[in-house]
Amino acid sequence: MEGERRVRVGLLGLGNVGQSVARVLEENSYWIERKLGARLELKKVLVRDPHKQRPVPVDMITTDARDIVAHPKIDIVVELMGGLEPARSLIIQSLQAGQAVVTANKEVIAHAGAEIFQAAAVSNAQLAFEGSVAGGIPIIEALKEALAANRISCLMGIINGTTNFILSKMAAEGVDFSTALTEAQRLGYAEADPAADLEGHDAARKIAILASIAFETRVSDDAVYRQGIQAVTADDIAYGRELGWTLKLLALARRHSETVEVRVHPTFLPNDHPLASVHGVSNAVFVQGYPVGETMFYGPGAGGDATASAVLADMMMVARRRLSGGKELGCTCFDQFPILPIATVETEYYLRLEAADKPGVMAEIARLFGKNAISLNSVIQKRSIGSDAEIVLVTHRTPEGKLQNTVAALNTLACVKAVRNVIRIERGQG
Amino acid sequence: MEGERRVRVGLLGLGNVGQSVARVLEENSYWIERKLGARLELKKVLVRDPHKQRPVPVDMITTDARDIVAHPKIDIVVELMGGLEPARSLIIQSLQAGQAVVTANKEVIAHAGAEIFQAAAVSNAQLAFEGSVAGGIPIIEALKEALAANRISCLMGIINGTTNFILSKMAAEGVDFSTALTEAQRLGYAEADPAADLEGHDAARKIAILASIAFETRVSDDAVYRQGIQAVTADDIAYGRELGWTLKLLALARRHSETVEVRVHPTFLPNDHPLASVHGVSNAVFVQGYPVGETMFYGPGAGGDATASAVLADMMMVARRRLSGGKELGCTCFDQFPILPIATVETEYYLRLEAADKPGVMAEIARLFGKNAISLNSVIQKRSIGSDAEIVLVTHRTPEGKLQNTVAALNTLACVKAVRNVIRIERGQG
Repeated sequence: MEGERRVRVGLLGLGNVGQSVARVLEENSYWIERKLGARLELKKVLVRDPHKQRPVPVDMITTDARDIVAHPKIDIVVELMGGLEPARSLIIQSLQAGQAVVTANKEVIAHAGAEIFQAAAVSNAQLAFEGSVAGGIPIIEALKEALAANRISCLMGIINGTTNFILSKMAAEGVDFSTALTEAQRLGYAEADPAADLEGHDAARKIAILASIAFETRVSDDAVYRQGIQAVTADDIAYGRELGWTLKLLALARRHSETVEVRVHPTFLPNDHPLASVHGVSNAVFVQGYPVGETMFYGPGAGGDATASAVLADMMMVARRRLSGGKELGCTCFDQFPILPIATVETEYYLRLEAADKPGVMAEIARLFGKNAISLNSVIQKRSIGSDAEIVLVTHRTPEGKLQNTVAALNTLACVKAVRNVIRIERGQG
Repeated sequence: MEGERRVRVGLLGLGNVGQSVARVLEENSYWIERKLGARLELKKVLVRDPHKQRPVPVDMITTDARDIVAHPKIDIVVELMGGLEPARSLIIQSLQAGQAVVTANKEVIAHAGAEIFQAAAVSNAQLAFEGSVAGGIPIIEALKEALAANRISCLMGIINGTTNFILSKMAAEGVDFSTALTEAQRLGYAEADPAADLEGHDAARKIAILASIAFETRVSDDAVYRQGIQAVTADDIAYGRELGWTLKLLALARRHSETVEVRVHPTFLPNDHPLASVHGVSNAVFVQGYPVGETMFYGPGAGGDATASAVLADMMMVARRRLSGGKELGCTCFDQFPILPIATVETEYYLRLEAADKPGVMAEIARLFGKNAISLNSVIQKRSIGSDAEIVLVTHRTPEGKLQNTVAALNTLACVKAVRNVIRIERGQG
């Protein structure tokens, strides 16, 4: 044990995650030091309001980022402010000064990753961001290191706890979307303005980061096709259950030979898929690769303590390299594969529509699919709604563009009142 | 990219895993080199029979271990022979010569780990053994690196594919143990002599390795309490289902303040526990720690390709350190915590017994539990068997010793024909 060695840490931000990091650094210090062979010493913490009561000694508190960023007495800058600015600028300044940077900021990495990786490479500075995706689940480490010999073909993630809580609740209790959302807000699982979660922005950022690492290519969050869960009804979930499926907000990234497919939307999964059993606020990432086959990483996707686990592991990793050299396996050379336009992506589809409840309607609808060269897997007439009937259709694999044209055409048919919902299906093939 | 750099590899053994390693090293060489900044070059392969047809060039084949072990032209020795000897001796000789060693040999690590870790430390040589536990699931890396800042309190694993296949089949189809075993053998999931799997030896080796790493203490496979799945009946599984439980061969390790609890036996888990959904030959390890909370790592627990994923990641890791320095976080200082005797371990129990089907019997049985200070959670009379009745009892938490005394006393009661089975229950608390 080299007890005299120490690595000096500055925290940018002392919110939920920052407080957990400071506390666990103290509580687990004996074991952290024993493994690292050195002490991680918290020196300074940047906050906005210096007068608020804080769980760290008062002389550590500062409101001036220059006490940490590019400061010669700070070895590791831990950015936990969230949001794009000033986090992005402070990270880049730290890297340029040769400091190691650990961040849990998904916005910055998903949106400005290229620029930040570049700054780290130019200064030969260390950058780690395990906490930016899926809280305590060490998925970035797995993709960079433990699965390093694999060619990853597909990632499927349940990486937004708020939406998974809502969908799980709708499924378990048969309640509608707004009831489940209210409950999520009451429990603190959804924010007062829940748009970033519900509309898939949060999941899009995370899958952009994961796809970049797994496929060694640049994927910005803007490039991710995105559809939220607001249109999902209790009926869709119930029909899916009859068909043996569970509904999830799935973030999916698939590598093709020269393109990448990356999308976030409500998705039916077969009940026996490992992701189908991931309930509540839990997160999981399912990885397919060669030679490993199929693996899944499951755990708490958010929360101060879970994210602190990731942030502290990153701090130990960069501290160790600072002390004893070495570097990560992670790729430093990124490709620029184009993102597959959503119109050309192929999946199976579930459609729920309302149509006149009279002879010949089913045939007319089926004929339209035939004309558009989409083959149907099943057509199920469900319940009656007044003089209309609810019809559920399941297609075979078809390109999205073709399907959308068909939906538009369906809506012009006199016998079709409306296509109520269209939900993609994933069977779990690579 | 430093294309001129290379690291020279020797394989000991060219069985299932060895062939996968050689093949993937070739097929994924572009991406491996791109990440590593160097080439992993397979130089020599030790085999027993030099005349057998092999999927590697003939000039690589040798029957003399000295062409690899302690040979100055080999940087990394990859041991894939299995079994205790000569693997143990060859690993130690390689480490003593300063070569890096990668092994997938659970017997050697579980049984001679202390000696091998010592040899690596003395020579400052690298040792990696991700492939020794749970095939393609990167659980050792997770415990050593990604969860490094955590205090791990509990590991629960489904880490034997053969027994999980058998129990899954019994549950899904209601067949008995021997039918499920025959099917496992037909599919190649169970060996002709399946004792090491069925009796829990294989799982005991793996949990010994995981407990050693997670708790930083020495746990040898001999110290693991072990009970196989042969006594499990379709009835037990069916009764468990009625109670909301799934039966698994669980490998469990729990850290107490100064002792370690470590055991392998059939176990009922609540259906909503993440491990309860792990079916067939899949493996999973559930980890509880502070601050991370509960995480789970799922994937293929065996097979040449899956294990090759782990072996190749280890090869890349040790190659990188050979080229650019650095060291792992893994603990080099192991404690020697005593293993908790099984008699003092506390769990809840399910008991199935056959007793006379007449008034007063239930009361007599309940009185015996009371006398032994074990409280019952539920007593359920199931079906009649001739003049007898099958009774299922569920206890509250109680020490194993007390329970076993009570079972012995039950068997002496005139009204009790026999205690047919005793199965432990885990609810998933840390």
